[in-house]
Amino acid sequence: MEQLEYQEGRTEISHMGKVPLIERLTADFEPRNAGTVKGVGDDCAVIGQGPRKTLVNVQTLVEGVNFDMMYTPLKHLGYKAAAVAISNIAAMNGTPRQLLVSISVSNRYSVEALDELYAGLRLCCQRYDVDLAGGETGTSRSGMVLSVTAVGEVDESRIAYRRGAKLHDLVCVSGDLGSAYAGLLILEREKVTYQANPDFQPDLDGYDYVLERFLKPEPRMDIVRLLADKDVVPTAMTDVSKGLADSMLHICRASGCGCEVYEEHLPIDYQTSRVCSEMSKNMLPVSCALNGGEDYELLFTIGQKDYEKIKDLKEVHIIGHITEEGMPAVMVTPQNTAITLRAQAFQGIEE
Amino acid sequence: MEQLEYQEGRTEISHMGKVPLIERLTADFEPRNAGTVKGVGDDCAVIGQGPRKTLVNVQTLVEGVNFDMMYTPLKHLGYKAAAVAISNIAAMNGTPRQLLVSISVSNRYSVEALDELYAGLRLCCQRYDVDLAGGETGTSRSGMVLSVTAVGEVDESRIAYRRGAKLHDLVCVSGDLGSAYAGLLILEREKVTYQANPDFQPDLDGYDYVLERFLKPEPRMDIVRLLADKDVVPTAMTDVSKGLADSMLHICRASGCGCEVYEEHLPIDYQTSRVCSEMSKNMLPVSCALNGGEDYELLFTIGQKDYEKIKDLKEVHIIGHITEEGMPAVMVTPQNTAITLRAQAFQGIEE
Repeated sequence: MEQLEYQEGRTEISHMGKVPLIERLTADFEPRNAGTVKGVGDDCAVIGQGPRKTLVNVQTLVEGVNFDMMYTPLKHLGYKAAAVAISNIAAMNGTPRQLLVSISVSNRYSVEALDELYAGLRLCCQRYDVDLAGGETGTSRSGMVLSVTAVGEVDESRIAYRRGAKLHDLVCVSGDLGSAYAGLLILEREKVTYQANPDFQPDLDGYDYVLERFLKPEPRMDIVRLLADKDVVPTAMTDVSKGLADSMLHICRASGCGCEVYEEHLPIDYQTSRVCSEMSKNMLPVSCALNGGEDYELLFTIGQKDYEKIKDLKEVHIIGHITEEGMPAVMVTPQNTAITLRAQAFQGIEE
Repeated sequence: MEQLEYQEGRTEISHMGKVPLIERLTADFEPRNAGTVKGVGDDCAVIGQGPRKTLVNVQTLVEGVNFDMMYTPLKHLGYKAAAVAISNIAAMNGTPRQLLVSISVSNRYSVEALDELYAGLRLCCQRYDVDLAGGETGTSRSGMVLSVTAVGEVDESRIAYRRGAKLHDLVCVSGDLGSAYAGLLILEREKVTYQANPDFQPDLDGYDYVLERFLKPEPRMDIVRLLADKDVVPTAMTDVSKGLADSMLHICRASGCGCEVYEEHLPIDYQTSRVCSEMSKNMLPVSCALNGGEDYELLFTIGQKDYEKIKDLKEVHIIGHITEEGMPAVMVTPQNTAITLRAQAFQGIEE
């Protein structure tokens, strides 16, 4: 029998960035089908030989890593799992159509608990006109693992890849940044207090906005429709799932360009700022925006010619511009200091 | 904040069959898109408005449940994960085109270990002309979780659903049954011996066939092509992933019919029989065939008119026929006793 061998040393996954890791693992795969328009390296696979393309992506959420059952109602979890997968369809400028859901659970979960989870999935499917088109339940040794596959559609002429940003394009972002992470900070704070004293009743008044941003994010299909109404096709787009820095670097890397975004133009909600100031003097709202993640806003670039169509949209903020190849991706502070954006490493968990 | 509540009692998932569970969870989902041809309840979702349909399915493999790292080389695991997803495309009579792979791992796994896993995925993709079209790596608290989404294509006129079996149709199965489970029995036996005495060298000579069946299954794309060559469209089809009984019941339930399969016609390899006799007097080869699982053979029904086209195919065995609605699904023994086929319950793991 062939044995498991680690012949040539051992490289820790935590020592590699996510992008270099995926690039290494998928380097030797040769595309064989004419229908595979875009494979690894964007928010979705792009499939099909006609002008109407199919978009597919799969997202996995692991208990204890991507969600904490201590403060995640199952209905919210179901909603969020669907929303995250749909957000990847939005990130290609597409329309979601179907979801397939694979759930692995231990016996800790009852049938009624799964009912709640599916109620959340259903609510999100209804809101975004998506069909549940496949379901599988399996067994897990510990906790819950949720894999959601989203299928969508987009006209070839309207696809927004991560690649495609050009020199002088404007960098835009929808909604606001960092608020989901602020919500997580509040939930983690209340969890610690509750663990110390189980009689403690969490006081979450005044944090509604940031909590909802974390527990029940909405994919920005409204922005996809708005861009269609205004007849704007982004030159590049992705969603903000791991913070602005990570998403911006994805676009710059795929497009072969640099960028400058301006700290003072980053859209940050006052509740996010308030949470940061409550937490610690050293917790800056801009850090939540850059590295917090889970906002599921859309980050995109547009040509200068589309500036007039975009400039007055309430939910779209112009935060910077694209610089030439070889230039770094930076954030410029109000003091005119350029801070280089950094990708996050693989977040490993020791076993 | 909304709290996790289990208001109305608690039903254990282990008390429900997999099919009733999925049916309960997905009951209230209303299809909204004309392109959703088939949703939950078959081997794949069937998508698209034209005559050429897209097939999508997602399969999750969990370490310690679906595979044991003690005897699963990572390269084999990668191959098997791809093969299992491709088998679901074959089960709809389709051709696989793309795979998307989502892997969650703890720090126990090195980059080199993931290299091995991807080498196996690549080998299977090459063999079946499939493109890796998406990849995601994430973090797991313990062990590895692999979710593979397979995308395929099929002409509307050639789709084989689970529904569609008609009275007097012939029940056919490819290859042989129970051998993957026999392979698992050998590996489990050697594992126990090894755990008792780590100096023990496993002796696997003479078990090559059953071991390969378990560790490196092949989706039966050859059968899909053979059916096309013979111009036969099965009236119903599924793959044998959890034993013949489970698959047969899926077809009977979806088609609204019963069946009789004949024990003496079940294709069982001599190595499977030998392993059973070595294990215990009470371990019958037919039990491996009915309930063992992981064979990834194709189980299908054909109209009587296609009998001549099928009867001499070496890799296709006619094992029974479809009976009318209201009749049970049974296996008839050589002594002419009818044994009712039973679905397996959800295999829960206590946490």
